[in-house]
Amino acid sequence: MAKRPLILVTNDDGITAPGLRTLIHVMNSIGDVVVVAPDSPQSAMGHAITINSTLHVEKVTIDDGPQTEYSCSGTPADCVKLAVREVLKRKPDLCVSGINHGSNSSINVIYSGTMSAALEAGIEGIPAIGFSLLDYNWSANFKHCKPFVKTIASNVLENGLQDGVVLNVNIPNVEKDAIKGVKICRQARANWEEEFDKRTNPMGRDYYWLTGKFVNMDQGEDTDEWALANNYISVVPVQFDLTAHHAIQKLNTWNFES
Amino acid sequence: MAKRPLILVTNDDGITAPGLRTLIHVMNSIGDVVVVAPDSPQSAMGHAITINSTLHVEKVTIDDGPQTEYSCSGTPADCVKLAVREVLKRKPDLCVSGINHGSNSSINVIYSGTMSAALEAGIEGIPAIGFSLLDYNWSANFKHCKPFVKTIASNVLENGLQDGVVLNVNIPNVEKDAIKGVKICRQARANWEEEFDKRTNPMGRDYYWLTGKFVNMDQGEDTDEWALANNYISVVPVQFDLTAHHAIQKLNTWNFES
Repeated sequence: MAKRPLILVTNDDGITAPGLRTLIHVMNSIGDVVVVAPDSPQSAMGHAITINSTLHVEKVTIDDGPQTEYSCSGTPADCVKLAVREVLKRKPDLCVSGINHGSNSSINVIYSGTMSAALEAGIEGIPAIGFSLLDYNWSANFKHCKPFVKTIASNVLENGLQDGVVLNVNIPNVEKDAIKGVKICRQARANWEEEFDKRTNPMGRDYYWLTGKFVNMDQGEDTDEWALANNYISVVPVQFDLTAHHAIQKLNTWNFES
Repeated sequence: MAKRPLILVTNDDGITAPGLRTLIHVMNSIGDVVVVAPDSPQSAMGHAITINSTLHVEKVTIDDGPQTEYSCSGTPADCVKLAVREVLKRKPDLCVSGINHGSNSSINVIYSGTMSAALEAGIEGIPAIGFSLLDYNWSANFKHCKPFVKTIASNVLENGLQDGVVLNVNIPNVEKDAIKGVKICRQARANWEEEFDKRTNPMGRDYYWLTGKFVNMDQGEDTDEWALANNYISVVPVQFDLTAHHAIQKLNTWNFES
């Protein structure tokens, strides 16, 4: 790529999140960066979009650096839509989302605002990557992520991605030297065993907090969960064609006469 | 199935929506129905879940009928989680979501609260179907949907669904006699060409409304868009393993040394 690539950066933890600041810093070293990120945290928003209320977008300066930044009142998917249609002068060469504070491996991809932004970019035909670190703390240490984020993003800029595919990258929360490398994986079969913490408010009305335990039901060594447990960075190619093609043949034997 | 099946009914348009009332009516004819649905419209919520605020669930009576009903302050995915963990005494035999006021065909599956509920049930190991009618109006006529909804739900109860697969059913907005039948399909490759309607508020600040035009880029005759355009009911088997397995081999040739 002769000229510097145009890179759209977003996330779901909000525009001031340390993980986003790290991602901007890395992307500044490989391209021209425009940030369009939510003005407040949007975790677990799934692929929500804003259709029944208005959207605001505002140019802001959060810290030093060559990037241009916009704060947006919407969801991560809204940010990408607004960036592409209203903010950017041309289609970006790459969209990166994150670095998320917390895992988006296995079934978490379904609930993830970080990955929702990447998927939205993919739907728009833009090569896209979601990055997540396995540490939920706001003060998480992202330093060891930097070289890997740069390498993976550079590979996508160099090689492109197949139509309809975006990357879901998760990074173990360990020292740089402990990371064994990057592993291409499939999404592990896992779920959350929810437990609702039931309480009573001062007015005597019951309410719940959603809590739960993550359960990996997948013994495979080609999954993202296996890779992360073994100190590899997991890269899962993710698609937004949700068709279960393998199920079509059997469904065609059903009788739908009514 | 010797005893009457237990059927969980939910939606994303809210507990008073006519589409939900139709679905309850049909399900009462084939099983014991428990409704856990959002107390307000949740369209375009994607697969959002509520983790940073509290959830309320309340037993309510909306209309006559043998069903038991609960109104929930959360998203469609929250409703399913709460139903399974707190409301129902046993795992339901079927979860149905809808009937949505408006299409959830092709790429709309990604933004759909209706399908989010069905997917959440699928993740919990419950056979699940999302139903949608191609009419956005609150006063849409759901009458012609009834026999098809009953037949499809009965098939799922009879035959089960493969692990990790839920059904996305869309129904054309035409007279019953015009419907040519039920067609098993794949998700069409389509997207939304968004246009943001930019306005200025009385305080002089710019804001946007998200609008757009649906574009079907898929010429295939095995897609949901083709089926619906030709007056078939489309049934797409949908999966929540998002892995793009076909992309793994090529990614393994990349160089991730950093």
